[in-house]
Amino acid sequence: MIQRRKTRRIKVGSVAIGGDALISVQSMANTDTRDAEATIKQIHRLESAGCEIVRIAVPDAEAAGKVKDIKARVSIPVIADIHFDHRLALESIKGGVDGLRINPGNIGSRQKVEMVVAAAKDRGIPIRIGVNAGSLEKGLEQKMGSVPAAMVESAKRHIGILEDLGFSDIKISLKASDVPETLEAHRLLAKEVDYPFHIGISEAGTLESGTIKSSVGLGILLSEGLGDTLRVSLSADPVEEVRVGFGILKALGLRQRGIDLISCPTCSRQEIDVISLAREVEQAMSKVPATLHIAVMGCAVNGPGEARKADLAICGGKGIGVLYRKGEMLRKVKKEDIISELMKEITSIAKS
Amino acid sequence: MIQRRKTRRIKVGSVAIGGDALISVQSMANTDTRDAEATIKQIHRLESAGCEIVRIAVPDAEAAGKVKDIKARVSIPVIADIHFDHRLALESIKGGVDGLRINPGNIGSRQKVEMVVAAAKDRGIPIRIGVNAGSLEKGLEQKMGSVPAAMVESAKRHIGILEDLGFSDIKISLKASDVPETLEAHRLLAKEVDYPFHIGISEAGTLESGTIKSSVGLGILLSEGLGDTLRVSLSADPVEEVRVGFGILKALGLRQRGIDLISCPTCSRQEIDVISLAREVEQAMSKVPATLHIAVMGCAVNGPGEARKADLAICGGKGIGVLYRKGEMLRKVKKEDIISELMKEITSIAKS
Repeated sequence: MIQRRKTRRIKVGSVAIGGDALISVQSMANTDTRDAEATIKQIHRLESAGCEIVRIAVPDAEAAGKVKDIKARVSIPVIADIHFDHRLALESIKGGVDGLRINPGNIGSRQKVEMVVAAAKDRGIPIRIGVNAGSLEKGLEQKMGSVPAAMVESAKRHIGILEDLGFSDIKISLKASDVPETLEAHRLLAKEVDYPFHIGISEAGTLESGTIKSSVGLGILLSEGLGDTLRVSLSADPVEEVRVGFGILKALGLRQRGIDLISCPTCSRQEIDVISLAREVEQAMSKVPATLHIAVMGCAVNGPGEARKADLAICGGKGIGVLYRKGEMLRKVKKEDIISELMKEITSIAKS
Repeated sequence: MIQRRKTRRIKVGSVAIGGDALISVQSMANTDTRDAEATIKQIHRLESAGCEIVRIAVPDAEAAGKVKDIKARVSIPVIADIHFDHRLALESIKGGVDGLRINPGNIGSRQKVEMVVAAAKDRGIPIRIGVNAGSLEKGLEQKMGSVPAAMVESAKRHIGILEDLGFSDIKISLKASDVPETLEAHRLLAKEVDYPFHIGISEAGTLESGTIKSSVGLGILLSEGLGDTLRVSLSADPVEEVRVGFGILKALGLRQRGIDLISCPTCSRQEIDVISLAREVEQAMSKVPATLHIAVMGCAVNGPGEARKADLAICGGKGIGVLYRKGEMLRKVKKEDIISELMKEITSIAKS
């Protein structure tokens, strides 16, 4: 039902972004890039979690020198995040990065920008222009009258610099920590350019509060068709960013990954312990590669209805659970056997 | 920026819903209502968390008999959730409930419905019609061609029964565990009636997955102006439902409550341990009644920009944190003193 905005297609390594490409899930390593071992280890964990593109900060020459080692030992595309210094971009490109996040207006003379653009063109590497409400050009908000308008103006300035050099292998991000400002900036820029959007809410907060803020903000953008790749920013283990990112896309039916768990909020009608059972199912399923829709329901009010649509369902009854597969009642099982009986069915489905 | 749908205003106890009333946050007790002590204790915890309306399940006469005791000892309005049996509704009204959640089409003869409606009218008690995709009338989905159309048809049937009896003190919920179905049902019914919407995603899942699904679904509805009161359904402690509910509203600027924390996602540029610091701030702030906007930023790239807009901010530097108040730099503080220095400022703001 979502009408995605029509955007150009770019590629970050093997991952297509924009056009009708699947909306990809990114994260950013929070290790010290100069510690290549730690960074590689974290990227491997991100790969296992399903992360499709990873960004690393390249704050100095030592970090830039590690790009090559990191690239050699990870499978997913790597983007170098660079501020102010064009030499770090050139060095990262030499090291084999698959994308740059650099704002051309912030790296000095036209000659420096030309060098970076020439190197990126030569290697077919896209550039993300990353506008952040927290670091807008001085006075731009006053001039444009609002933060979203200033974000859009800033993006257009950076885009203009690249387009003047004949470079259009671009994606754009417009991040603010304020959700309404983020929404407004995207709505405005979407009317003006067709470059793909990398969406995110910046500085969203801790795992708990940041999950809510990111899900609200990115959910609304995606429902309006805005967003070609996303990164959830959390003050947490970046693996959580990937889990939340897929969770947002799954909620809207835009991606499938792993378990889709439906479980009731529990009330005094519940006949089985839904909270612990749902957690057990979620944990058990985290090791199963199949994409399955599973319902854990406490009672007979909404249980059988939800069971009809699920690959597998368990509904609470007095002292027992009733097991369903594709809406067909299979059998009654004792409370203590629910997880083992469910896992039997999951294994059988995974095989078939 | 959000244009709220124009709806009638009803009242659940002292809480107004619809019209231009604040969007209220509800939860549901998951204790056994027959255990009045446990239920009262849980409602007190919900009240402390900011819950504004609480629902309790009334599955039998014993539970209905406890409504009076519960009402006597809690401060927020109480709604009785009833299925099939009109006598439980009558008994709950006698016990003093502030609202009913009951579907008139499911309680039998017109005479039974009339008795409930007369009692509700007499006491000025609104009725929520709660349509759930998991318990639609048999064959309705096939007849209407889709789940959302069937949900709307079901709601209209129940509404019709009440309107025929001259009763319009109504709010409606249209819950599905599938987000796009939930969205579609609300968009359809919004065109046909002006009763306020109680919004929620049913059976959303565990704390982790349910937070994402509810934030995406309710965030989109709210961004479209749909929703006058909300309940987040989680297979978790209902106190979490209240926290997430306010989090969703805060993200969209629709409510203010407690801390609004901005914290960066950490990268190799960070000079302070943002993850643990953000958690410490969030915990310390959970006891402070003031509404404050606080930024915890790892470095100088976006830090000072975010600090400009925050009531208080701490930005990482080499071995130190830089403390800001309303965008003005206050002083540099040692890493180990950051929390105590922040709390000093919070106390000073709270006093002023």
